[in-house]
This record gives sequence, structure tokens and C-alpha cells, in this order.
Amino acid sequence: MVAARLPSLASLLSPSTASFGRRSPVILLRHHRLLRPPLTAAFSAQSAASSPPETQDRVESLKSRVNQEKDRVITPRSQDFNAWYLDVIANAELADYGPVRGTMVIRPYGYAIWEAIQDYMNVKFKETGHSNMYFPQFIPYSFIEKEASHVEGFSPELALVTVGGGKELEEKLVVRPTSETIVNHMFTQWIHSHRDLPLMVNQWVNVTRWEMRTKPFVRTLEFLWQEGHTAHATPEEAENEALQMIDVYTRFAYEQAAIPVIAGRKSKVETFAGATKTFTIEAMMGDRKALQAGTSHNLGQNFSRAFGTQFTDENGQRQHVWQTSWAISTRFVGGIIMTHGDDSGLMLPPKLAPIQVVIIPIWKKTGEKTGVLSATASVKQLLQTAGIRVKLDDSEQRTPGWKFNFWEMKGVPLRIEVGPRDVSSGSVVISRRDVPGKEGKVFGISMEPSVLEACVKDKLDEIQSSLLGRATSFRDSNIVDVLSYDELKSAISLGKWARGPWSASDADELRVKEETGATIRCFPFEQPQGTKTCLMTGNPAEEVAIFAKSY
Amino acid sequence: MVAARLPSLASLLSPSTASFGRRSPVILLRHHRLLRPPLTAAFSAQSAASSPPETQDRVESLKSRVNQEKDRVITPRSQDFNAWYLDVIANAELADYGPVRGTMVIRPYGYAIWEAIQDYMNVKFKETGHSNMYFPQFIPYSFIEKEASHVEGFSPELALVTVGGGKELEEKLVVRPTSETIVNHMFTQWIHSHRDLPLMVNQWVNVTRWEMRTKPFVRTLEFLWQEGHTAHATPEEAENEALQMIDVYTRFAYEQAAIPVIAGRKSKVETFAGATKTFTIEAMMGDRKALQAGTSHNLGQNFSRAFGTQFTDENGQRQHVWQTSWAISTRFVGGIIMTHGDDSGLMLPPKLAPIQVVIIPIWKKTGEKTGVLSATASVKQLLQTAGIRVKLDDSEQRTPGWKFNFWEMKGVPLRIEVGPRDVSSGSVVISRRDVPGKEGKVFGISMEPSVLEACVKDKLDEIQSSLLGRATSFRDSNIVDVLSYDELKSAISLGKWARGPWSASDADELRVKEETGATIRCFPFEQPQGTKTCLMTGNPAEEVAIFAKSY
Repeated sequence: MVAARLPSLASLLSPSTASFGRRSPVILLRHHRLLRPPLTAAFSAQSAASSPPETQDRVESLKSRVNQEKDRVITPRSQDFNAWYLDVIANAELADYGPVRGTMVIRPYGYAIWEAIQDYMNVKFKETGHSNMYFPQFIPYSFIEKEASHVEGFSPELALVTVGGGKELEEKLVVRPTSETIVNHMFTQWIHSHRDLPLMVNQWVNVTRWEMRTKPFVRTLEFLWQEGHTAHATPEEAENEALQMIDVYTRFAYEQAAIPVIAGRKSKVETFAGATKTFTIEAMMGDRKALQAGTSHNLGQNFSRAFGTQFTDENGQRQHVWQTSWAISTRFVGGIIMTHGDDSGLMLPPKLAPIQVVIIPIWKKTGEKTGVLSATASVKQLLQTAGIRVKLDDSEQRTPGWKFNFWEMKGVPLRIEVGPRDVSSGSVVISRRDVPGKEGKVFGISMEPSVLEACVKDKLDEIQSSLLGRATSFRDSNIVDVLSYDELKSAISLGKWARGPWSASDADELRVKEETGATIRCFPFEQPQGTKTCLMTGNPAEEVAIFAKSY
Repeated sequence: MVAARLPSLASLLSPSTASFGRRSPVILLRHHRLLRPPLTAAFSAQSAASSPPETQDRVESLKSRVNQEKDRVITPRSQDFNAWYLDVIANAELADYGPVRGTMVIRPYGYAIWEAIQDYMNVKFKETGHSNMYFPQFIPYSFIEKEASHVEGFSPELALVTVGGGKELEEKLVVRPTSETIVNHMFTQWIHSHRDLPLMVNQWVNVTRWEMRTKPFVRTLEFLWQEGHTAHATPEEAENEALQMIDVYTRFAYEQAAIPVIAGRKSKVETFAGATKTFTIEAMMGDRKALQAGTSHNLGQNFSRAFGTQFTDENGQRQHVWQTSWAISTRFVGGIIMTHGDDSGLMLPPKLAPIQVVIIPIWKKTGEKTGVLSATASVKQLLQTAGIRVKLDDSEQRTPGWKFNFWEMKGVPLRIEVGPRDVSSGSVVISRRDVPGKEGKVFGISMEPSVLEACVKDKLDEIQSSLLGRATSFRDSNIVDVLSYDELKSAISLGKWARGPWSASDADELRVKEETGATIRCFPFEQPQGTKTCLMTGNPAEEVAIFAKSY
């Protein structure tokens, strides 16, 4: 019954040549790619577009309109991954470009994903004993210089305040690129005895790094993140803390974001400027490039020695504290887009989706409207009460078909359709975002509250695991085990990740980067059994490393 | 029974001359006032301090220790309000000074108050139709210059980034002092039609104003705030929005912070740089100075004209949008401290207190310990389950008396004491922070879960209204109705607020400021009935204004 009422997803993908007399989307897209302000309202439900006359067959007209609107919006992912990414961000209204090169405005829909990440993390951080606080963002330049490798790593990307209140400053101020230095400056004042330890804090803030090549969410001049900072009495505690936090990130990635990251340790070359060890989670994007999605650093005593952060231990001896820092950022939103999205746009994991279910009322005749709207309002109320994030799109400026595509493009995991015949039979139709066509639809779900609620929750759970399953298969089919440098080069040239035993030098690692564009993403925590021979040198190796091109 | 067991609050206030061989608190306090990093851990439960031998009578020893510790920490409020304020902030570990002049580190306990403010506001903002988002903090200098009064108001306090990535920038960047300019730059790209309106957003961010005279929370070089920004199709809608948001702030102040603010309109002289109208909430601090605790601006078309933020109305005409902006900041935390605190330290309204109830176990003999600790753990569990924010202070490094004072100083609204006799009788003792001595104590409250939970919730409610009642009486007894400039001068010279009819010129208003130090805080929304004669000119006046010295 529904097939006759609505266009199938397949029909929506057929080409169209009609024009609606609006500004050319092709130009809009090109603007976007050139990092100039895009006209991001192009696909907004609020923007003006004339509706076809109501006398015409509604289904047929929406079919053709949808095709036209659809075709003009998003570059197919398979055709140009980068263009697709930027189109999704613009059209789903996740972000926009700020007026200063490389800066990003995070729009409400994108920010809501970030808020979902914050909500989850804040609970986990507090459960693991951390408190939120706030350190100032202006750091005296001299602080940055105190830790040798830190200044080397960060000085090329600093933004400097040199004028304040109309006067040239005596000491220029660094706009926080990360806060280890100012954190240590304060810790020296708060830590005296072993009883002051561990000191475990976190802050949610903006940070600035003067990046030359930027990309929304993935690498921007200013971004949002959380940075955890802890101080401990022993190196073991610091190591455990750094491992605990990379584990929190890993669980978040799997369970909330449905991203099967690979957790491991960075090589010395790739370790954070100032850390003794960096742990990382590496995610495979849809174009098979790696995204470093979160890091946790064991800082050892590097910063505490540079700043004199000491405590008196139980034996009355002065010791430098052992520290960690760890962060995830708005880059994670980019990771979600690039892991799950498809040609139709964004695809959000239900646990992080700002809207988990969209309800679309469908009617042809005016007489049908009241019944349908009343039914959809009840369904909305029911789901909202059940704690589901739900949106009822009952605007009359757009056709149902247009709405189907719009909310698919916005990545809403589940759609509920209610038409006059559904109202008569007391049922609804449910469509999964992640399974196109009839296969993803269930017809005749009862509107009976307990049935509908259970069904929607089940479907959301199914989608959540299905996204993780799909991403895991994709990841696993794109990692190649390699035993020689030739095999590594061949895997990388095919766009895949290469995993192989590695005990070669930093120079060899840099050579791989120069010759293949790939870097060691990590030595995974999960290691294969058995003896290993370094793929580069033929010497014994203790671990396999993963090599990949990355963002 | 309890009187014998524990020192009365009165006895805790008696003078002491003993010394504990720790660094002189007097020096610490002086450091603090000189805006140098204070040793804020001085009163921390975690810091090292030797305990008296357990053989001595515990009650007597804690009496004398408490006196000594107490005396050294906080300057009495009545003696020096400013010193008291800084002492409270340092000792309650609310904040500390950052390394750059005028910057502030918000410590976990202070930040938790800010988080409570955020949690409440976020719900209200979303209920009233606003979405959170994020605008970049770097604003091209040319933007600031576009709105004439805006640049005049803000240019003296700007921090400028002139170097990025090692290079001198072509255009210097302003570190966001407020975001109206960049918001309008973006709004021009998102707003096309009346269907795009209203556009209602908010962001929680840091802002920078190069203030010369700073004070923690009240006025700092960098602070945290939320700034709401909206665009509307009509001036009426903008006016209603600006009024709605000052109403949200007013309710928050009364219902959550227990601060009886006076809401009203700013005079033209005191209106925000770029607004047509500024609404404000003005709070009376414990020293009777006024604190502007939140503002909501009707921006009219000032920014939309400067930036060309236009929409096509229903008749196809292009119009500039009508806008508002509104903000509260970490300054509010300062307002809470200065409204409710007393000689013993901080006093927090239960609804915003990070810890609403502290439980102190009390035992003398080792045999009593297990029973007492097990009872306090049950009480903690019970209250936590009931949604009460509770802390069990079972550390053994400090005596009960020390803990009493410590948590009083931290402003925890309610204390539960459990000793061996309470365990035997299955009851607890409850003490109110806001009512000193026996009057604030209730003995023999049953530990039976439903009884105890109800009693604690009642007490918290009582404290919440009692704080508001007390602050309201204080406010009302310190506002003087004046009919002439002489009466105004006399009221101000007594440190009070003056309320009188006003229709005089801007020049007259500035003269009052010059001659008395007081400014018009607002024309209150609540106006007395009857004809009014301007206190300065004798001309008819439509409204009374409130004059006061302010922070």
C-alpha cells in the first residue's frame, strides 16, 4: 500500500533536468570548496521555494521535485570524497566558515552532536574521579619555552596577542594551543604533599593552532575540545591513568559513535611534544584515510621538571609529580561524518543523533489532514515521553518526499510515516536510514504505545549495532598484513592500511612517510601472537605497527 | 547530649593565640590582596597538618584547634569586605589568579557553581526556543569598526592578535569581547526570507576585555559567559524577546540564587554600546554596592544596518532584521558570594550548591568507629539516591570540629552529624549553615529513610527561602526613597541605594556620578503609582530611577 503512496528510494535517485529558477547549486558548491562562505541555507526547510499546485497528483509531483532537489545538492561520495564531505557539512547545516581563514562556525545541528559527546564524557570523567574547572587561555610566551620539545612542537602554530587595552604588551601572550604549561604553573601552587595527589581535572575549552591547511571539524585554526590534566605520586599511577582515559575514549568510539577505532601507542616520532608516551585511537574514514580521534599522554616528569611541580612524599622527600593529559575535540564530529555518511548525506549513530526519529505526516485530501496530524502528534508525544529525541516535521511548505530526503540527508536514524490509511488501521510505517529501499521499511507497526515504543527502541539499537558492524567490516577488509616494505608500499598505494612488524629506526619511519605518504598510526594494543621480523630491516620485532595515510 | 560532645558555634568564635608552625596566614592573605598567587591550599583538607595526640580529650583539643585555624583564615566581613571576599575565594578554593594580570583560574568548587548555573539556563534557553552553537573567537578588526557606538564602547578594552603561525597578520584580529559583529556577519548568510526568522541562538564561551581594575569573578580580563543572539522580523518581537530573557534571568536570580535583584531598564548613558535599549538585573551586595548581574539588549536595527542583515518580508520587501543579545557571566558567582556570605565564609543557596549536605561522622573510641562509619555511609547512600548532592567527610586527618568549620566556610547549606549515641538511637543531628548555634540545629532526626529524606529536603527548601528572605530584607532596608538631590547625596553617602523620580539630562546623570560616585542602576519595571517630580530639575518625571555605587 505504501509503495503506491510514496516514491521508492530507487526512483528518487533517477536523474532529472528540471530547474526551479533558484541560484545554481553548482556555484554554491564551488564556493564552498574554495573556503568562501557558502550559501548553506540552500537546502533548508525554511528557505523559500514555490510548491507545485495542489491539484496535480501529489506523489508524482513530489517524485520529480525530490529528484531535482536531490541532484543539485550533494556530490556523490564515491565521486569526490572531499567535495561530498564539504557538501554534507553545508547542507546538513553542521558548520559554516568563519570570516577569518580556517575558522569554523559550529551551527546548532553540528553543535548538538558535540553536546551529546560532552554529556557522555562528562559522566565518564566524573565517574573516574575528575572535576571540571577553567584555566585562562592567555599563556605568557615564556611558559611555552620552558619544556624544550613542547616549544619545538608548538611554536610554528601559535597565535600571539601583542596588544591589550591599546598598548603594546611587555610580554606577548600565547592564545592557548594546549594547557600543559599553565596547568603546571598552577599545580606548583596547589600541590605540596602526597596528600594533594592525585590531582585530576578537566576543562572544556577552545584552543587555537595556526594551521595552514584547514578542513571543517578535522583541522581548524580554532577548535573546541576537552583537555584532562592529572598529577600523580608514582609513574605507575600516571601510566594507569593515561591508559584508563584512552580506554574511556575507545569505549565511547565503539559504543556511542559506532566507530571501530584501533587503540594503541604512538611511535616516538609521532608522540606528543612533551610526552614520554602517547596513546591514540585511530579511526578509518570512508576514504580509508586514518583519523587520529583522541589521544592520551603519559607526560612523565617532563613538565613537572620544567615547572618545578613537586610534592613531599610519605618519607618527607621532595619529588616531581608524574603527569598525564588527554583530549578529544570537535574533530570527532568530522570522524562521525566520514565514517558513516553515504551518497544521500549524513548518517548518525542513534546514540549521538540530535534527532533520533523524524515523523512525517502524509495526506492528500484536506479531509485527511486533521486525523493524520493528530496521530503524528500522539506518536511524537509518546516517543518524547519515552526519552527518545524526536522531531515532527508538520510544516506545510514542503512535500513528504522532500522531507524524506531532507531528513535522510541530515542523517536521522529512523523515520516514521503516518498516512490516512495508517490512521485507519492504527499503525505506522518505519524506515531505517541505514538500509535503503523496502528492505529498511517495516509496515503496519501498531500505534499502541508499548508496542511502538519497544519497536522504535529496538530499531534504534539495531541501527546502532549495524553501523558499528558495517564500519568494522569496512575497516577489516581494508587492513593488509604486510611482511616487507614492498608489500607495505603496495597496500598504501591501493589506499589501504598496512599492518606489519616494525622495529626500525626513526629515520626509516620518516623515509616511509616521504616515499609513501603513510605514517605509523600506532602500535595497536592488540598484537598478533608469534615471532615477528621487522618488515624494513629483517631484525626481530616485538610489535606490529599500523601504517596509513591520515588526515 | 550534643552540647557536651561538640563545641558550640559561639565557643568556636573565641580568640586564640596558639600557633601550629605553618606559614603565616597573614602573609598569605596579603599576597592575595596584592593580586599575587596566594597559597590557596592553606585551608585544604588535603594539606599537611599534624594532628594532636589521640590520647588527649578529643573535644577539648578540637575546640582549641578549630579556634586557631578559624582565626587565621578569613578576615571578618564586617572588618574589610574586600579582604573578606578575596579570603573566601582563596580558602573555599573557588578561584585563583592566573599568571597573566587580571586573569582567573576557576577551581573545581567554583566551576561547579557555574555548571549549576549552566544546567538551569540551558533548560530555560531551550524551552524558550534557542539552540546552542559556536562562533569563532577571532573577529577581524574591521568588523568592530562597523557599528559606531560599538567600536567606541569596546575599542579601549580589546586584546589583539597580530602574529599567527610566526607571521605578522595582514589584518589584526580581535579576541572576542562580545560577538554581535561576527554573529551579524554570519546571519547575513543564513537569513534570506521571513521564513528564516526568528533565528534564536546562544553560545557558552570565554570572552576577553582588557580591564585595568580586576577582581575575581566580578571583573576579569577573561571571563566565561553565555551570549544569546536573536534576529526577528518585527521590532515588537525583538522587544518581547529582550524582555523574556531578562525575565528568565530574574527568575533564576530569585528562585535559584536567592538574590532579590531589581529588574529594569538602563538609562541611555548606561545602555550597551550598540543597543537601543538595555534591560538589567541589579543585585545588592553585602557591602550595599550594586552588581549588574545580567543584561538583555534590544539592538533594534543597529547591527543589521551596519552589516546588511536583511530578509524578504511576506510582501516581498527587503527589510533589516530586529535583534537582541543577552548575557550572564561568571560574575554571577561573585554575586552569590557577596550576597550570602558571612564572617564564617561562603553561604551557598541549596539549589546551586555543589554539595548540599555534608555528613560528619564523630567517634571517640576505636570501638565506636565501625558503627558510626557504617551509619554515615547508609545516610549518604540514602540521600544520594534521593537526588541530593551529598559529601561524606570520613577522612581521618581532620577532627570533626575542623570539618565543621571547613564545610561552613565552603558554604554547604546543611550538615549532618552522626555520633555513637546517634547510632544507638537510630537518629542524626542536622545543622543549618544559615542559622548559627543551637537555633539552627535539630536533634534526634530519625534515620528512617523516608523521614530523613523528607526532613533534609524540607530543610534545604527552608534554607533556600530563608536566604532569599534575608537578602530581600537587607535590600529593602537599604533603599531610600529620595525627592531631592540633597536627599540622594545623603543616601549615597550613607552607602545606601537612592530611589527617586528622574527625568533630567544625560549631563545631569554624569554630574551625579562625578559628585557622588553613584550611577543610575536602572529604571525599575516596578514603579510606584502617582505623579512624580524629577529630583534634580523639578520637572515632571515618568519614572523613578535607582542610584547606587556599583562594582
